[in-house]
Amino acid sequence: MSRHLCRRFGSQLLRPSQTTPSAARRAYSAAAPATFDWTDPLSSKTLLTEEEKAISDMAERYCQEQLLPRLEEGYRNESYDKSQLEEMGQLGLLGATIQGYGCAGVSSVAGGLITKAVERVDSGYRSGMSVQSSLVMGGIHEFGSEEQKERFLPGMAQGKILGAFGLTEPNHGSDPGSLEMAATEHPTKKGVYNLSGSKTWITNSPIADVLLVWAKVADPSKGTASDGSPKKVIRGFLVERKGAPAGAIETPKISNKLGLRASITGMIHLDNCPVPAENMLPHAEGLRGPFGCLNQARYGIALGVMGALEDCISRARTYALDRKQFRGNPLARYQLVQKKLADAATDAAFGTLAAIQVGRIKDAGGDAAVGLPDMISMIKRQNCDRALHGARALQEIFGGNAVSDEYGIGRHVANLFVAQTYEGQSDIHSLILGRAITGVQAFA
Amino acid sequence: MSRHLCRRFGSQLLRPSQTTPSAARRAYSAAAPATFDWTDPLSSKTLLTEEEKAISDMAERYCQEQLLPRLEEGYRNESYDKSQLEEMGQLGLLGATIQGYGCAGVSSVAGGLITKAVERVDSGYRSGMSVQSSLVMGGIHEFGSEEQKERFLPGMAQGKILGAFGLTEPNHGSDPGSLEMAATEHPTKKGVYNLSGSKTWITNSPIADVLLVWAKVADPSKGTASDGSPKKVIRGFLVERKGAPAGAIETPKISNKLGLRASITGMIHLDNCPVPAENMLPHAEGLRGPFGCLNQARYGIALGVMGALEDCISRARTYALDRKQFRGNPLARYQLVQKKLADAATDAAFGTLAAIQVGRIKDAGGDAAVGLPDMISMIKRQNCDRALHGARALQEIFGGNAVSDEYGIGRHVANLFVAQTYEGQSDIHSLILGRAITGVQAFA
Amino acid sequence: MSRHLCRRFGSQLLRPSQTTPSAARRAYSAAAPATFDWTDPLSSKTLLTEEEKAISDMAERYCQEQLLPRLEEGYRNESYDKSQLEEMGQLGLLGATIQGYGCAGVSSVAGGLITKAVERVDSGYRSGMSVQSSLVMGGIHEFGSEEQKERFLPGMAQGKILGAFGLTEPNHGSDPGSLEMAATEHPTKKGVYNLSGSKTWITNSPIADVLLVWAKVADPSKGTASDGSPKKVIRGFLVERKGAPAGAIETPKISNKLGLRASITGMIHLDNCPVPAENMLPHAEGLRGPFGCLNQARYGIALGVMGALEDCISRARTYALDRKQFRGNPLARYQLVQKKLADAATDAAFGTLAAIQVGRIKDAGGDAAVGLPDMISMIKRQNCDRALHGARALQEIFGGNAVSDEYGIGRHVANLFVAQTYEGQSDIHSLILGRAITGVQAFA
Amino acid sequence: MSRHLCRRFGSQLLRPSQTTPSAARRAYSAAAPATFDWTDPLSSKTLLTEEEKAISDMAERYCQEQLLPRLEEGYRNESYDKSQLEEMGQLGLLGATIQGYGCAGVSSVAGGLITKAVERVDSGYRSGMSVQSSLVMGGIHEFGSEEQKERFLPGMAQGKILGAFGLTEPNHGSDPGSLEMAATEHPTKKGVYNLSGSKTWITNSPIADVLLVWAKVADPSKGTASDGSPKKVIRGFLVERKGAPAGAIETPKISNKLGLRASITGMIHLDNCPVPAENMLPHAEGLRGPFGCLNQARYGIALGVMGALEDCISRARTYALDRKQFRGNPLARYQLVQKKLADAATDAAFGTLAAIQVGRIKDAGGDAAVGLPDMISMIKRQNCDRALHGARALQEIFGGNAVSDEYGIGRHVANLFVAQTYEGQSDIHSLILGRAITGVQAFA
Repeated sequence: MSRHLCRRFGSQLLRPSQTTPSAARRAYSAAAPATFDWTDPLSSKTLLTEEEKAISDMAERYCQEQLLPRLEEGYRNESYDKSQLEEMGQLGLLGATIQGYGCAGVSSVAGGLITKAVERVDSGYRSGMSVQSSLVMGGIHEFGSEEQKERFLPGMAQGKILGAFGLTEPNHGSDPGSLEMAATEHPTKKGVYNLSGSKTWITNSPIADVLLVWAKVADPSKGTASDGSPKKVIRGFLVERKGAPAGAIETPKISNKLGLRASITGMIHLDNCPVPAENMLPHAEGLRGPFGCLNQARYGIALGVMGALEDCISRARTYALDRKQFRGNPLARYQLVQKKLADAATDAAFGTLAAIQVGRIKDAGGDAAVGLPDMISMIKRQNCDRALHGARALQEIFGGNAVSDEYGIGRHVANLFVAQTYEGQSDIHSLILGRAITGVQAFA
Repeated sequence: MSRHLCRRFGSQLLRPSQTTPSAARRAYSAAAPATFDWTDPLSSKTLLTEEEKAISDMAERYCQEQLLPRLEEGYRNESYDKSQLEEMGQLGLLGATIQGYGCAGVSSVAGGLITKAVERVDSGYRSGMSVQSSLVMGGIHEFGSEEQKERFLPGMAQGKILGAFGLTEPNHGSDPGSLEMAATEHPTKKGVYNLSGSKTWITNSPIADVLLVWAKVADPSKGTASDGSPKKVIRGFLVERKGAPAGAIETPKISNKLGLRASITGMIHLDNCPVPAENMLPHAEGLRGPFGCLNQARYGIALGVMGALEDCISRARTYALDRKQFRGNPLARYQLVQKKLADAATDAAFGTLAAIQVGRIKDAGGDAAVGLPDMISMIKRQNCDRALHGARALQEIFGGNAVSDEYGIGRHVANLFVAQTYEGQSDIHSLILGRAITGVQAFA
Repeated sequence: MSRHLCRRFGSQLLRPSQTTPSAARRAYSAAAPATFDWTDPLSSKTLLTEEEKAISDMAERYCQEQLLPRLEEGYRNESYDKSQLEEMGQLGLLGATIQGYGCAGVSSVAGGLITKAVERVDSGYRSGMSVQSSLVMGGIHEFGSEEQKERFLPGMAQGKILGAFGLTEPNHGSDPGSLEMAATEHPTKKGVYNLSGSKTWITNSPIADVLLVWAKVADPSKGTASDGSPKKVIRGFLVERKGAPAGAIETPKISNKLGLRASITGMIHLDNCPVPAENMLPHAEGLRGPFGCLNQARYGIALGVMGALEDCISRARTYALDRKQFRGNPLARYQLVQKKLADAATDAAFGTLAAIQVGRIKDAGGDAAVGLPDMISMIKRQNCDRALHGARALQEIFGGNAVSDEYGIGRHVANLFVAQTYEGQSDIHSLILGRAITGVQAFA
Repeated sequence: MSRHLCRRFGSQLLRPSQTTPSAARRAYSAAAPATFDWTDPLSSKTLLTEEEKAISDMAERYCQEQLLPRLEEGYRNESYDKSQLEEMGQLGLLGATIQGYGCAGVSSVAGGLITKAVERVDSGYRSGMSVQSSLVMGGIHEFGSEEQKERFLPGMAQGKILGAFGLTEPNHGSDPGSLEMAATEHPTKKGVYNLSGSKTWITNSPIADVLLVWAKVADPSKGTASDGSPKKVIRGFLVERKGAPAGAIETPKISNKLGLRASITGMIHLDNCPVPAENMLPHAEGLRGPFGCLNQARYGIALGVMGALEDCISRARTYALDRKQFRGNPLARYQLVQKKLADAATDAAFGTLAAIQVGRIKDAGGDAAVGLPDMISMIKRQNCDRALHGARALQEIFGGNAVSDEYGIGRHVANLFVAQTYEGQSDIHSLILGRAITGVQAFA
């Protein structure tokens, strides 16, 4: 393990492990099960390195001990305690797969296990972390200049600089190529762009210090459009809130959400917001840029949602064993209940294995990784679909009690719908896969 | 049509129909469609009497004009404006299928069309009305004494006396036969029972004037149990809030619900609450009582949820036509979107026809109606299952925007899960049907 | 009832009803059930006229007594006993909805009940009858000249002239508008067309006396195509086998089918086959012709497949009650089995009601019937999908025994796949419905 | 690789690989794909050893070159060419995971890849091989005496002695504990048992030389039953056809099967068939014996059915690219078609990874393998369910042509239903998993 993740085992944030409460005593325990282990039915742990297991354990402990207790309040009131990002930073959990720049440099699988631990608590918390780690830090690392990396990554790794990722616009969701955010050369200041336009459904935008905003900018080297103007190309800009003129940046919060209520979501309105040219990511041009960032994040989602599904299984199993109906039988005694549990456990087990495999290919790189974006589409789609389906089926076990937010199951259902939808709605990934399989595109 | 429903067409509550806003101009318009009518694909309207069509139109107009505007606020804040029940009372919509006692005396189908109109707006509003109309008024009408009917029904029909139905207990949901609420003879007052116990998930309990509470009471005529005490039998009691001793009745509201947030739900705690013997329903003994009430309500749900599904279809269709992605195509242009719409429209059409048919059999009575409870199980289960399934599939069309409560779709999804669960969870109805088909019971 | 259907009750083909064997004693019995009637859960029989019930009873008796015994042999060996069509003719079951021309003139619902009776035995037998009744007789009746009707319909009604319907071509299935069969004016004989081309998957073609073949013919009145030739239009031709030159008509049988093995299927190869102009249907031009015929047939399928599904339910229920596993419990005792039965019975009940409703609208005609083709798409798609789905789920109840053809269930599964596919594959109907709902077409 | 599998690369049975026909040029090619590889979407090949890849390649080549050409005839006529078992024996493919006794001693994964190669051609051929390799050879190896292993295994490995596995009885399928086959001590011959009873649905029974028959035998050491007789225990007997008295063994073939028609299936009737005590498996007592054998075979099925599913994907993809409808678009251009392909490819990829993982755990043994039987239930159930579901969905792409046996898809659908059913029907595995997850059994 990278040294500084090791070091963090002694963090004040974590209780000594012998006192781990029962809620946290679960799949990630080190001891081999004496029988079939319903928390890891196909023993995915045998595929992990010791370092990965240790990171996973630490992350799970932090999440169960520190995040879970704030959740109910956050979900009910749509309040997000952003200090959690600083805590994660202290533990080395942010941008953890990045080498250098104060990041932990762990494997993709380890990175995914961190998202899984967070999403076991709540998909909204995972969203907040994914934006920071994958979309923004990952984007800067993959497409930024050396100067940009050094300026932003260390502070972001510590959770002291918060990021948001501005791609989706009010009229352009599944089809980002049509985005309208415009970057034009400042009329007077050399080396400065003016950005204008709106983004929506942007996780963390109200609290972010730096917004990675994708905009179209004229590029004369690409030739001219039919109207004689130079063609435009999509570029990424690191828009810093600090120092921006009054009114140039607004990031209103979106309230009354029906899912991911424990995360904070907003819009980004830029009105002639000046951004120096050195804040443009030099190595991202066209959709390759945002899609590269999304690939990172989608991988995290694919493992993350398995955490949410596993939490649903655990909660439903407990409820089914505790709740008695008809002659004192526990619900667990009923075939229709057992089938729901069996289906969900199977999907969790299969999906976890598939995501680990894709993580290995991602880290191996080379020829094997040529089809990686399509592989990530496959696991993002399938794991989100099955997590949502499983959560809904398990919700039925709770009967009327599912409506109470104390049981947690309805919250996962609402969250997982969003996870299935963002970063590539399920149907869009079906068409990405269809194209990969047949060579024919069917988007329109 | 019953005269007083007719009379109510001139109600102040309804705008003159020529000004019906576009939102309310829909399926229930009188004019024959020039082409396939997606709002009523199999022309269920051809099966309705003129009176039924008129009642449906009136109810739809009231709901779209008067209920819809209060909904957003109610759902966000879990606030229920109980004056709506008084308004419905003014229009003759409460207990509408009851003959006499100030009720409209319309057909079962007409009664179902009223619930459909209300549930097109929100399942929570329909729940509030169903409890009043079917569970409590229906229960009093079916199992009450003449005196009870005269004392309660006229006021309830006007929405001036509000009712709640107390069957489910914290530990007994799907299996009400095990309920624990106890009615014992008052130690000193002759002709008075003392009721003690708790009920939960009781719609309208915090605002109800009269609680129809199901309790077990010793009945020496049934013989003795193994411990020598007289056997107990389930009976229904009309527990009146007014005049009850302090602390004898508590009905705390349940907050932070994940569905049906626009309705009000609570518990009922009775602590030696004295109830005069004349408030016991004379004609209900054993589970026949609550099950009889539930049959009424379930019928309303079966048609009601078709209203919610139709609203989802309407919203999704509008969104799919308005929203453009990929080269300016509306979402409606995509095969995967069309299939979702086709599936949902089919389920709405089939489910509506089936519910109308069962309503006819209900009203016909006689031999044809012998299997009625199982028929109602069939349509309650199927229509709830399909409404929920359809709403979820249509929700995907909205992509990320589904999370905004402005689009209404997520609200229906959350509500319909509850509708699928209460008054017989879907799996329980599967077993009721399995028993009806095979003659073998498989509950335990 | 039309007189001659009445008369046929005394037919030699039917045993006196008091001796009806138990296999045939079922849903269509006249007596009201003492309890929930699993063979007709929502009492669709209450929607039938006395005449319709009588026709249904007669058809069911004929099918169970006369058709069922030949089935095993026919299915195993792909042999079709065409004398069954003559028998059906004797009973008045062919082209039964046609008024006059020796046909019974019954309601659309009665016609559908006949197909349901036949398909309860086997979808292949129903296919053979549908082609005769709906596609060919229906086509002649709807689009033919008076002379054509008088020449063909009486003999076809008696099953003495057999028909086949040639629309699908080897390269054009779901998209018949691209068909290639060509009708050109005979080089020398005035008033004669030469037809050349191939049709495939044509039920009854090897045994048919008259082939209703859809071909393209130049029509100068439509203007010219881009290459200067006159535009072509699709027309229907009644191609008679008798008197055709050697080699002009070939109708080879297709063997080794995986479904509908009890029906006979073939190709049609026409090689400069001369057809007199008076054999062209005068009133069908363009796709309106074949689609009109298909509408008739699809209606029959929609009710027909409900018969096959009901037979699956009946067989599965019997098996589940007879078969004991685990401590002597019948399979019917298991929740997972009961759910399959409940689901299938619900689909059969809902689908039957929907089909009856569409039949009523069909017969009513007028404004209500404007959207009829889309309504038929809806019930054809849904009933085929659900029948297939139900049959497959019920098949699981039989375990390994499902593989034996003695239990009949696997045969229905294989047949119903074909029913779902022909006369509009399910996805095509989804797009037809999607277009009807949204006004946007998404076929290509 | 074991030496003798290596040696067999030069077998006369295999063409030199440079001439591998296009049909066989597929997923198992060694070269890394330039892009996403739809035949192995998640690069499961990266998890294989060089030996495993080589074995897989050899098996795939043999199956495509030697087995595929005989299939059509075999399936149509229910004829099984048993020489294929001898060929497989020559190539070292039988009992391949067994160490010693003339067997190849390859890994469990390699064994599974062999079944996958065979089932890519036909599930019936794989069944024939599984019985020989897993159920009988595996059973002898796991539970037999050293003498039994030496007497039977080498000849079986070469395909010169054929085996069958007799567990299922006419009245006992899912519940083998109730089997009725009786082994009693011979009245006169010491050390000989007499076996009497019937088995059914026994793959290969008509051609088998040795039948592994499970029977109940009195075991006084177990105490006495309620009627005073000694308790009975299930034991396995190697019943040899050669030398059996006339009439003691009958193995009639079951014909007219609706699936697995290319395999041979029969019954086993034993009538006082004498079997020497040394033919009883010494180490199997109770259900542990047959369940141990089934575990081996189920593992092979779990990977095997992925081969059948992959073949369906390949066939459907080819058809979808070749078949044009509506303005010349290939079917592959339609969203509804792409989704079916994407779903099936995902299931094939996930299922293959899961099966490889379980194979690794199986070979690792020790603590990790404690829950192995439940793991195998999980992958057997899921992979069979998904293969069947995927095959059915892909079948729709073929439209009417699916009915022709030339396209192969309907055959896979029919076969996969049987695979889902035998060796633990899907619902039974759901209950096994439900018990493993909850600790509560719900079989009865």
